Formats: sequence, C-alpha cells, structure tokens
Amino acid sequence: MSKRIAGPEIERLIQLLAKVPGLGPRSARRAALYLIKKKEALLIPLGSAMQDAADKVRICSTCGNVDTSDPCMICTDPRRERATLIVVEDVSDLWALERAGSMNVRYHVLGGRLSPLDGIGPDDLNIMTLVGRVAEGEIKEVILAVNATVEGQTTAHYITDQLAGLDVRITRLAHGVPVGGELDYLDEGTLTAALRARTTL
Amino acid sequence: MSKRIAGPEIERLIQLLAKVPGLGPRSARRAALYLIKKKEALLIPLGSAMQDAADKVRICSTCGNVDTSDPCMICTDPRRERATLIVVEDVSDLWALERAGSMNVRYHVLGGRLSPLDGIGPDDLNIMTLVGRVAEGEIKEVILAVNATVEGQTTAHYITDQLAGLDVRITRLAHGVPVGGELDYLDEGTLTAALRARTTL
Repeated sequence: MSKRIAGPEIERLIQLLAKVPGLGPRSARRAALYLIKKKEALLIPLGSAMQDAADKVRICSTCGNVDTSDPCMICTDPRRERATLIVVEDVSDLWALERAGSMNVRYHVLGGRLSPLDGIGPDDLNIMTLVGRVAEGEIKEVILAVNATVEGQTTAHYITDQLAGLDVRITRLAHGVPVGGELDYLDEGTLTAALRARTTL
Repeated sequence: MSKRIAGPEIERLIQLLAKVPGLGPRSARRAALYLIKKKEALLIPLGSAMQDAADKVRICSTCGNVDTSDPCMICTDPRRERATLIVVEDVSDLWALERAGSMNVRYHVLGGRLSPLDGIGPDDLNIMTLVGRVAEGEIKEVILAVNATVEGQTTAHYITDQLAGLDVRITRLAHGVPVGGELDYLDEGTLTAALRARTTL
C-alpha cells in the first residue's frame, strides 16, 4: 500500500505473504488481518510450522523428493513395488501422482526439464543418478511421466537415449481425452492422439 | 491429501496453509512446495515475520485498530485532523479507506455490526468507547462508514441514537454508481439512490 498504516512487523508480514503463490498484494492484506485475528489458533502455529519445516526439510539423495528425512518416506516404504520407477520433472508432479494413488511405486525427480533457451542442460537435472539407479538392475520399467510439452518430450528422448544400453522397459503416459473432459474444448493434437489410441469397448 | 506423502512437519505446514483465506487445500500444497524451495528467501523470513507479528500486535485501546503499538500509529499521528472521525465495522474497512487515502482523519473500529440473529448486541461492539470519544467534545463530525447492508444500517441507526445528545454532525457514505461501474450490472436500489442523489454537471 502506498501509505504506511500499521507497524513494521505487520507491513513485513503483508509483504512476505504477497510472495506466496495464490496470494497477491490484496489477498495478502486480507490474509494478514485474518491471521492476526486468529493469533493463537493460526498465526502462531503457522509461524512455528514454517520454522519446523525449514529446520527439518531435506532433499532425498536417492530420488530428489522433498521430505523431512533422507532417504524420503517413499524411498524407504517397504510396501512399494521396486521394479517400476516413475520419472517426474518436479516434486509437485510426484505429489499429483500420489494423490491419484493408482500405483504403489517409487519415483525419480529430475528437478526440471531440458531447456537450452533457459540454459538448462543434462547436468542441471538428476539424470546421471537416474541412470545409476536403473543400472543397479532391480528396476524393470521406467515410466517417463514428464509434461506433454516440447521441453518435456525432449527430456524424455534424452533419458531414453541414456538408458538405451540397460535392460529396462521405458514407457510414457498415454495421451487422450481427460476424464470428464469435453471434446469441444480439446486441442487438435489431443483429439488426434485420442483417436489414434482408441480402444475397443 | 488422503495418503501421507511427506514427513509430519510438511503435512502440518500444508494443513495450516490451507486455513489461510485465499488458499485452499490444493493451493496450500503448491504454496508449501514453493516455500520449501525458497527456504532462505521466503520460508524462514515468513515464519519469523509471523512470530514477530504475533509478539508485537496490539489492539488500539483508543480506536480498536490492529497495530504494533497502543495507541496505534493512526491515533498518534499528529498530522491527522482531529475534528472528524470515521466509524467502520472492521479493521479491513479502515485499511480500505486508508488505501483510498482521500481523508487524513482518525477512525473508530466497531469490531462488527449489530446482528441479533448471531447474538451480537451493542455490548459486543466498541460503541460505548465511541460515545466516550465523541463526548470529549473535540470531534465535530462522525462519518458512519458501515457496510450498506441491513445489519450495517441497523448499526448506523443505533449509533445515531446513542450520539443524539451530543454536539456532533453525523454523516454516512453516499450511495451511487461505483466509479467505472456499468449501469447494466447494478441493482435497482443503487440506481434509485444514484438518481435521487443526482448532481448538476
């Protein structure tokens, strides 16, 4: 806000809240006021939860996931099938797949995608560690769950090349109509892919 | 999320973030991941800003505003005109008026509106302290900037009654067409009020 209307601690809280994705300058003010009103129930617990998270958070040295232990909860889970590995660009993709909950397997987080324009090459991604994990021989299938963008597909091709000599099946997510999606709103590429991969009822 | 996919500190951070207005369960996860990635730049500073704000925040005993000092920065500002007082329901209304920045005066925050259905009566609002401030004699005009709702207007009438014996002018905000608003989208009540209060060009 142009004019200072509250003490520096409140102004600073608003400024920092405005940087949280999903909040803008206006909703940051509303959030700050709400937090202040719920001081005992929300402001103090959230502040200490942030400090706890900052203290405890680790990057899993096996898969690149974010967790409070290294190796992470997923890598150490004994109930997960170890023959299949899902490769994702980002931790948020891992979380999305876990929410779907359809496969009880482990992951490998690349930490981004190949993007020469942004100066991101193979050495900036966790690709060598992936090759290392697969070379151990336990993994029989690598599912490349990268985004269906040009950069994601370039990354997928690069990984496929790197894994070429190893005895592993490499697959990718199916293209098609989103469940609940309306054809009218879909792009031609998706419709073409969905037609080509049509299945018998 | 149904399945636990990260350590308790991260899960707790997501749960608490989901209670912040403007964030839901889905955006709380995205926000948590962003904060964790920006640990040094955002997560740690925001955590400590929250604890600072929680330590320092006070309710102004003069006007009911939220600030880090009591009396608040606005009440102690020597450059503010002292003959006019704006009465608002909530601190968020005070902030909105300060953003507009059109009057350099002081405020009185009621802390809500009269609402018999919710069990909120005159004693639950800062009305007696308002009468006390006005009775001191320095204030010549009280602007009732309460919401244009039934409850806001009931509150305005009640306050007008309470201030009846005192030598003070009581005004309310003008009704009319919002600046930049289109007539087609306005309700009949607003249009009628705008017509009735028409001004000569």
